[in-house]
Amino acid sequence: MPDTNLPASTLPRAMTWEKGELYLLDQTQLPLKTVVEKQESVQQVWDSIRVLKVRGAPAIGVAAAYGLCVALKNSQDLSRADFLVEMEKQAVYLDSSRPTAVNLGWALRRMTEIGRSANVSSAPDLYNLLVAEAIAIHEEDKGLCHGMGKNGAPLIENGMGILTHCNAGALATSELGTATAPMYVAHEAGVKFKVYADETRPLLQGARLTSWELQKSGIDVTLITDNMAAHMMSHGLIDLVITGTDRVAANGDVANKIGTLGVAILAKHFGIPFYVACPSSTIDFDTPNGAGIPIEERDPSEVTEFGARRTAPKGIQVRNPAFDVTPNELVTGLITEKQIVSAPYGRNLKALFGEGKS
Amino acid sequence: MPDTNLPASTLPRAMTWEKGELYLLDQTQLPLKTVVEKQESVQQVWDSIRVLKVRGAPAIGVAAAYGLCVALKNSQDLSRADFLVEMEKQAVYLDSSRPTAVNLGWALRRMTEIGRSANVSSAPDLYNLLVAEAIAIHEEDKGLCHGMGKNGAPLIENGMGILTHCNAGALATSELGTATAPMYVAHEAGVKFKVYADETRPLLQGARLTSWELQKSGIDVTLITDNMAAHMMSHGLIDLVITGTDRVAANGDVANKIGTLGVAILAKHFGIPFYVACPSSTIDFDTPNGAGIPIEERDPSEVTEFGARRTAPKGIQVRNPAFDVTPNELVTGLITEKQIVSAPYGRNLKALFGEGKS
Repeated sequence: MPDTNLPASTLPRAMTWEKGELYLLDQTQLPLKTVVEKQESVQQVWDSIRVLKVRGAPAIGVAAAYGLCVALKNSQDLSRADFLVEMEKQAVYLDSSRPTAVNLGWALRRMTEIGRSANVSSAPDLYNLLVAEAIAIHEEDKGLCHGMGKNGAPLIENGMGILTHCNAGALATSELGTATAPMYVAHEAGVKFKVYADETRPLLQGARLTSWELQKSGIDVTLITDNMAAHMMSHGLIDLVITGTDRVAANGDVANKIGTLGVAILAKHFGIPFYVACPSSTIDFDTPNGAGIPIEERDPSEVTEFGARRTAPKGIQVRNPAFDVTPNELVTGLITEKQIVSAPYGRNLKALFGEGKS
Repeated sequence: MPDTNLPASTLPRAMTWEKGELYLLDQTQLPLKTVVEKQESVQQVWDSIRVLKVRGAPAIGVAAAYGLCVALKNSQDLSRADFLVEMEKQAVYLDSSRPTAVNLGWALRRMTEIGRSANVSSAPDLYNLLVAEAIAIHEEDKGLCHGMGKNGAPLIENGMGILTHCNAGALATSELGTATAPMYVAHEAGVKFKVYADETRPLLQGARLTSWELQKSGIDVTLITDNMAAHMMSHGLIDLVITGTDRVAANGDVANKIGTLGVAILAKHFGIPFYVACPSSTIDFDTPNGAGIPIEERDPSEVTEFGARRTAPKGIQVRNPAFDVTPNELVTGLITEKQIVSAPYGRNLKALFGEGKS
């Protein structure tokens, strides 16, 4: 029975925690089927993260935190000491589901630290503390999204066309998303606008996820192939671009899904503002500029095949960089949960943290 | 038995006429299978054009001319008068295979005009004249391609990276193609270069056709998704862009496959020359500028489905313009069979025809 476990709100949610149970939306079946799965065991949670039923760095972290609660629910009759041993074991297990996801390890470390340092005597008390911490992690992430939404929404005016790329949406976070947060907030406030969603080859996150979640939320969304963006801009249909980012360098260079750089250059050519939404935690002061950001090269089959069907010649050479780097001079502003930051980025990003604004 | 009917040369050919028989390469099966089909009847030729086994405006015209010969091969025992009646009937039939293809009607009118005005008395003589005219049309088209190849090849230097978009290749013409002609000529001359082929969503002509024909010809080709072009340019991998065009306006504005405008803007941003290859017949002096070129909007399913699999939500709004218009100021030069034409286009395009250079 699809949809029955979804919250009443039309805003799509990657996960919900209700009456001590974790529910995950199976994103691998989107947009064809909306299937919400109750997580019955830690093995199931591990598998859901592994096979990308839940994806997006913030969402993975929250799912892992709740996953640890799922793992320990039936261990409340253990002694305090044995419960803590079990907690460490299950955290290591969950952390192995996607070893490269930064938020996964971060959330699990935060959970186990709470358990270890807790001043309570029984396993049920420990379990309740862990659940409270998972909910806190979830709520904090929602708060970041709401902050970005509140700060970015004033950029959106009645009648605007907004282009976005990939899925930096509600599905990748706890709620509202990053790039989509200003859209959800403006929509809620009654602003009428149109979103154009790049399909985002090769993995089609725009076609499968962004267009699905915006459509479901009642936002006017139109799907285009990546190579149609220039045509739409040349016809005056785009007034604003908002994307997400995987990492912002100290000088404001932005790494994001492949294709973002091209969109930024087109926006500059047509004089369209280009904004990037991100929680301030995405700003990496250890990376001085975009040249220092490693670009993952993914499997050629993502380009040469589609579904089960091969669409390119056998033996063809392929490039498949997953990300590109947009230089800071193409970025009109970074929409963070604290404020919108503009050039000069080197100084203003430091000021974001240095002037006690957090 | 694939490949057995292909010419010995490694250059892919959309069609061959050998010993009174027409052979068509079935492009709908590329790149997975190389199937060359002997055309046994005019119905078969009609169907091959209809279902895009042969495609590309020049190639369709030549196929129709040969198709008329296929239609009349077994009518040589008719009287001269009856043969001519049959010729007109079959020309009308072939013309109905793809009513919007300009070259189709043009080639068939040229063929029937030859038949009507021929000063011969027998059906076999008429048949032979028609075959000679079809071969002449074929050879003239090859000549145009070779002219573009000869004029464009000097742009290509050792070590260069060349980006192309869609398929303006040998498969769309009689030989060498338009955008690919300079590449084939330079390759034949021993110049070493790399081609990056945009896959060209939604119909993937770059992935299915361009990468196939260049690979088969021994040219170093790498397939990328459309949204990777900016990344490749930013890493210094692209020195030259060459595309084809469907129509050039009198002021040099260029209509071509959707995505071309974006590539042209990226090329300008990175200071990379952007050339468009076309026979001079593609220049339309009746269209003053790009705003006058109608843009075909195609079926949304090309964007929302891939093969048999749906990849976007049900009911999603879609835009699917098949072409875009690149303004003349982004075009470094037009590679024609006569010469390379540069700005100011208004004056120089007229001069191409007015100064007796044809």
